[in-house]
Amino acid sequence: MLDNFAARWLPALETEMRAVLAGDDRATPLHYGMIHYHMGWVDSHFQPVTLLAGKRLRPLLCLMACQAVGGDPAQALPAAAAVEILHNFSLVHDDIEDGDLTRRHRPTLWSVWGVPQAINAGDAMFALAFAALQRLSRTQVAAAQQLAALQLFTDTAVALTEGQHLDMHFEQRRQVSVAEYLRMIEGKTAALIGASVALGGLVGGDSMYAPLRRFGQSLGLAFQIQDDLLGIWGDPAVTGKAAGNDILRRKKSLPLLHALNDPLCGEALHALLWSDRLTDADLPEALRLLEQAGARTYATDQMRRFYTASQQALQEALGAEAPASLLWATANWLMQRQS
Amino acid sequence: MLDNFAARWLPALETEMRAVLAGDDRATPLHYGMIHYHMGWVDSHFQPVTLLAGKRLRPLLCLMACQAVGGDPAQALPAAAAVEILHNFSLVHDDIEDGDLTRRHRPTLWSVWGVPQAINAGDAMFALAFAALQRLSRTQVAAAQQLAALQLFTDTAVALTEGQHLDMHFEQRRQVSVAEYLRMIEGKTAALIGASVALGGLVGGDSMYAPLRRFGQSLGLAFQIQDDLLGIWGDPAVTGKAAGNDILRRKKSLPLLHALNDPLCGEALHALLWSDRLTDADLPEALRLLEQAGARTYATDQMRRFYTASQQALQEALGAEAPASLLWATANWLMQRQS
Repeated sequence: MLDNFAARWLPALETEMRAVLAGDDRATPLHYGMIHYHMGWVDSHFQPVTLLAGKRLRPLLCLMACQAVGGDPAQALPAAAAVEILHNFSLVHDDIEDGDLTRRHRPTLWSVWGVPQAINAGDAMFALAFAALQRLSRTQVAAAQQLAALQLFTDTAVALTEGQHLDMHFEQRRQVSVAEYLRMIEGKTAALIGASVALGGLVGGDSMYAPLRRFGQSLGLAFQIQDDLLGIWGDPAVTGKAAGNDILRRKKSLPLLHALNDPLCGEALHALLWSDRLTDADLPEALRLLEQAGARTYATDQMRRFYTASQQALQEALGAEAPASLLWATANWLMQRQS
Repeated sequence: MLDNFAARWLPALETEMRAVLAGDDRATPLHYGMIHYHMGWVDSHFQPVTLLAGKRLRPLLCLMACQAVGGDPAQALPAAAAVEILHNFSLVHDDIEDGDLTRRHRPTLWSVWGVPQAINAGDAMFALAFAALQRLSRTQVAAAQQLAALQLFTDTAVALTEGQHLDMHFEQRRQVSVAEYLRMIEGKTAALIGASVALGGLVGGDSMYAPLRRFGQSLGLAFQIQDDLLGIWGDPAVTGKAAGNDILRRKKSLPLLHALNDPLCGEALHALLWSDRLTDADLPEALRLLEQAGARTYATDQMRRFYTASQQALQEALGAEAPASLLWATANWLMQRQS
């Protein structure tokens, strides 16, 4: 069912995104070439490639939400393209900010063309995400809906930068509370997933899109906590990440924060992680302390709590039809993932 | 006359910008503090300061254009705030991309808080520029005008990134044509000045804002070429920049490009500038070659040509009233500047 929907709409989504990101100026082929590289359409010599692009999760949720409220997903294609381009803008800048060398098994944009051009290519994608959304005027969306969509989109873009700010800021700090962590992932992950669903609902004719938005936000929180769990206890053969990678990077994920804030083993974990030489050999002890603090159970409970909240919000939005909807099935499928 | 207009409207503009950039989240004071620092409102310890902020040229042109077509400048304040915030976003990222340590006699944002946070603070300002423009809904601007304004603003943001891309790209290249240079400053400087004037006209009720936009674009081109001239032949005591600074930095300004493309002295100038050791002692010879190629005369002619084009566009927009308008006087004042 999900595969059918994706097979039906992903080609049109790619066409829409390619139209927005084409560039219409012969003076700037390199500028747009870098963007096409990041989107997974060309290699670093700008030759066409067929890659496994991202999951396109956000645009698919947008199109599903439009359909769920009785709209035609074709009308929401500009909004779906906009959320995916905004998501990709944030990845380009995150990769610079985090110094990450690879993404989706390829060198990151900045590691090929340097930081200055990569910052600027990201800025272009940011602006072009707004350009994508403005193409709602071509799919007969009323002016009031267009303005509401632009407002929601802008608020989301601001929230993304707040979340990213907190994420970087927390790296400098010794202690971060669970409340602070939740505020961070609300901006960094949940806001855009919430907006993706809300925009689909809005375009589909549901002017009361608040419950749909809450469905997306809660799902986003559950999704991020699941990511944290997989980053520590996921099977390296499935996730593709080295075992204990997030622990060795001292990533302030929810399980780690819970254990660091634990009155019994927080100090010991802190001393272990911030010792001068943290190596693979310290992983068993770190995992033992996490276990002792009940970190895995705690984070799993939190994930389930947000997942349940997302189901409740979807029932509020769609009523009795919710459990039979594609959005419900997609949320369920996401919660089953092992990578 | 200009001073009266600025004195009348700058306080309201600052109030509008402060409202947009306030931040409403107790979790992120540092995020918004960095933005307030860049705007010249606080020092690096977030204590209020009274600094000479930027010229606020773009928002003033926006408000003047609104008045020139018979509108109330108060209605255009959100658009004026938007163009100034967008301009400041681009400065934050340009400073990172160029590695500049100071701006307006203070350390640049990135040099105080590091590149990752500075990229992200710039991104926030980019998003907040859109938020500023959306406050046109509060000043009773009709939905169709709001959408037209957003479209124009988005196109301008894309053009900014294209201009910045070319500027950085040209630094890597040996030869750049005058046509390529003009294309670059169209994006980097002229697009936003054109949009500032056009947005004022649009909000003021002039749905045919194309001549106003051309006025701003041509003025922007003249302004940038004047900047190039001052960067080489300006009086260091007035400009505040060291003599020959742009030559020593090998900045691909219009006079330099003209001389580098000159069949007689281009080679010699190239050899001089790209020798291993370029010092102050080489300045007289560089200036002699520029003189021999007629670079100063050429650039001055080009500047006047665009200034004349801007006057013609303004007459097209405002008719016989153009020469008595504040926009005309402001353009004239700008062309007299020595720094």
